[in-house]
Amino acid sequence: MIKVNEYFDGTVKSLALENEDGRVTVGVMAAGEFEFGTSTIEYMTVVSGSMTVLLPGETAWKTFRPYETFVVQAGQRFGVKTGQPSAYRCIYK
Amino acid sequence: MIKVNEYFDGTVKSLALENEDGRVTVGVMAAGEFEFGTSTIEYMTVVSGSMTVLLPGETAWKTFRPYETFVVQAGQRFGVKTGQPSAYRCIYK
Repeated sequence: MIKVNEYFDGTVKSLALENEDGRVTVGVMAAGEFEFGTSTIEYMTVVSGSMTVLLPGETAWKTFRPYETFVVQAGQRFGVKTGQPSAYRCIYK
Repeated sequence: MIKVNEYFDGTVKSLALENEDGRVTVGVMAAGEFEFGTSTIEYMTVVSGSMTVLLPGETAWKTFRPYETFVVQAGQRFGVKTGQPSAYRCIYK
């Protein structure tokens, strides 16, 4: 069965899979601002909409658009602002 | 709220959103073979894994990999085979 994850009162949801990429989720964020924590390295790729991201140790927010990827190391926190509902793929390494 | 869709006894699930791309879903298919029907034009893009697709009017299956897109016109049926769990983005026009 395909697992459905929910975060932030259902304003972020994701579907989990495992394949040649390893552990993967695809998910949707409503418009809003979110802070996430990592337990593994995460390769986050925007697939629809856009995400403006504050990466660990950075002071400037940076915007990522479809097929652009940012990487967050394990044990870090990062911020995401979405001006519109947006979708992503996350690969966990 | 982000709507979760389920098909084929939960072996295909998707999450719906609407943004600058229009109506969009991101979804996951378990390994298997599926036949889908369209009610609008669908722009299907693989985002993880791969999908081997029989498009309407074609006799040969064709394999699509991450960031590759196929288009299905409205009112058509198409087949998808997935050798591994795979994820996609679909834009409805």
